[in-house]
Amino acid sequence: MRFTKMEGCGNDYIYINGFEEEVKYPDMLAVAMSERHFGVGADGLVLILPSEVADFRMRMFNMDGSEGEMCGNAVRCIGKYVYERGMTQKNVITLETLGGIKTLQLHIQNDIVIAVTADMGEPILEAAQIPVISDKTPVIGEKLQILDKTFDVTCVSMGNPHGVIFVDDTEHFEVEKYGKVAEVHPMFPKKANIEFAHVIDRTHMSMRVWERGSGETMACGTGASATLVAAVLNGLCDRKVRIQLLGGTLEIEWRESDNHVYMTGPARFSFDGVWLR
Amino acid sequence: MRFTKMEGCGNDYIYINGFEEEVKYPDMLAVAMSERHFGVGADGLVLILPSEVADFRMRMFNMDGSEGEMCGNAVRCIGKYVYERGMTQKNVITLETLGGIKTLQLHIQNDIVIAVTADMGEPILEAAQIPVISDKTPVIGEKLQILDKTFDVTCVSMGNPHGVIFVDDTEHFEVEKYGKVAEVHPMFPKKANIEFAHVIDRTHMSMRVWERGSGETMACGTGASATLVAAVLNGLCDRKVRIQLLGGTLEIEWRESDNHVYMTGPARFSFDGVWLR
Repeated sequence: MRFTKMEGCGNDYIYINGFEEEVKYPDMLAVAMSERHFGVGADGLVLILPSEVADFRMRMFNMDGSEGEMCGNAVRCIGKYVYERGMTQKNVITLETLGGIKTLQLHIQNDIVIAVTADMGEPILEAAQIPVISDKTPVIGEKLQILDKTFDVTCVSMGNPHGVIFVDDTEHFEVEKYGKVAEVHPMFPKKANIEFAHVIDRTHMSMRVWERGSGETMACGTGASATLVAAVLNGLCDRKVRIQLLGGTLEIEWRESDNHVYMTGPARFSFDGVWLR
Repeated sequence: MRFTKMEGCGNDYIYINGFEEEVKYPDMLAVAMSERHFGVGADGLVLILPSEVADFRMRMFNMDGSEGEMCGNAVRCIGKYVYERGMTQKNVITLETLGGIKTLQLHIQNDIVIAVTADMGEPILEAAQIPVISDKTPVIGEKLQILDKTFDVTCVSMGNPHGVIFVDDTEHFEVEKYGKVAEVHPMFPKKANIEFAHVIDRTHMSMRVWERGSGETMACGTGASATLVAAVLNGLCDRKVRIQLLGGTLEIEWRESDNHVYMTGPARFSFDGVWLR
């Protein structure tokens, strides 16, 4: 079984070309290969497959074998993979995912994909649809008591629920302490990803993310998108910003013309491999 | 750069065939490749090289780029590698390491190396040589106060210092809590690896290890060796035992005829790779 390891902002997946390799049990393979000492080591497994409704189709499996809907960092890697491995000559690619068809814009220099812009769709601000329990909608700067602190939280769905909290300093913030309590707060009936963001200036932010079910991660594309939307709603920054995450930098734009959020960021090959187990 | 990922009891290294690949800066490569999200992910990098004094020579680099002397789990993997990849037809191999020349006995079935026995050398029991500060030598069942508990510790060097403590239950033992304090106790002037072992019967033990400078790990060959020696010195078991570690099982024998400790355990290929960075 041949595979390729890639990462986007430190979010690392095993990519398998489903045009060449047959994977019968991707859920079990994801569990075996994702393990970091006995397997290949990854956040999960991504299959690149033919599609009847888009240029390509992706299926992604988390390290526990569950199937994921979408991952902004993974779709950028797919854009780089299919172009640089000669599977397409297009620089705009449509990708079928469980979270809908996503459009990718490849930024190419000398036949190398140096960055990829992914259309993350429109943010959902309606409280009931996020879902978040609140008297207000949209939920902007709602008071949220977590342990010994009261935060102002702004709630956004990018297909998954986010609670964005602005803090003075992300580097020393106790993300785990407050994130794990906020994630399961009763105001989030389906739990939530919690972003702790610091606005540096109108076009720069730093952010750390506590992901629902995963804990703190190095990067979260939907989290960065939700954070920009929340910052704009609070009047804290422009509609296009660079957000520094633990694993790298993403550029996020909430375009006025179509109300979509666009995420631009890196994707890198780490190694090609042949699984020997 | 081609490489192979292997593991022995969950102790996983990147192996590079130095007969075919030239590695100019193995310390820097070890740092880059060992990183688990941006690199290949490993406990470190091992080079398999020609030797003028043995069949092969190994150099090993930890994930921080420092050069290591010896690793029992890694030398077993080298035994499997050189035999199954056709670099030798011998079933007894000598290996030059910074910790001296090690002899490996390969256990072969149908051309597959199913286990490897490594000669770990003679245990050092002299207090000053371990080194451990004590009135007694050998140091057997010395009282050691760690936080709220008093343990009996037995001290052994296998080329590196070990403090072995017998407990009633390894599964629920707070290895981090007590290990990190014991590691730097004043009685160990060069610090020590701390083993927490449970004697199941005369030929079976379970063990967890707190490694000096690394924290709890899945397996430690010198730690398992020191644990058997300590158990024999305390009259707790026979000279040949199976020790269950978090990452797998090792068979350890302290042979009466030559006073050497022999460690037998598994080695496995995980995947072959080509580094793309």
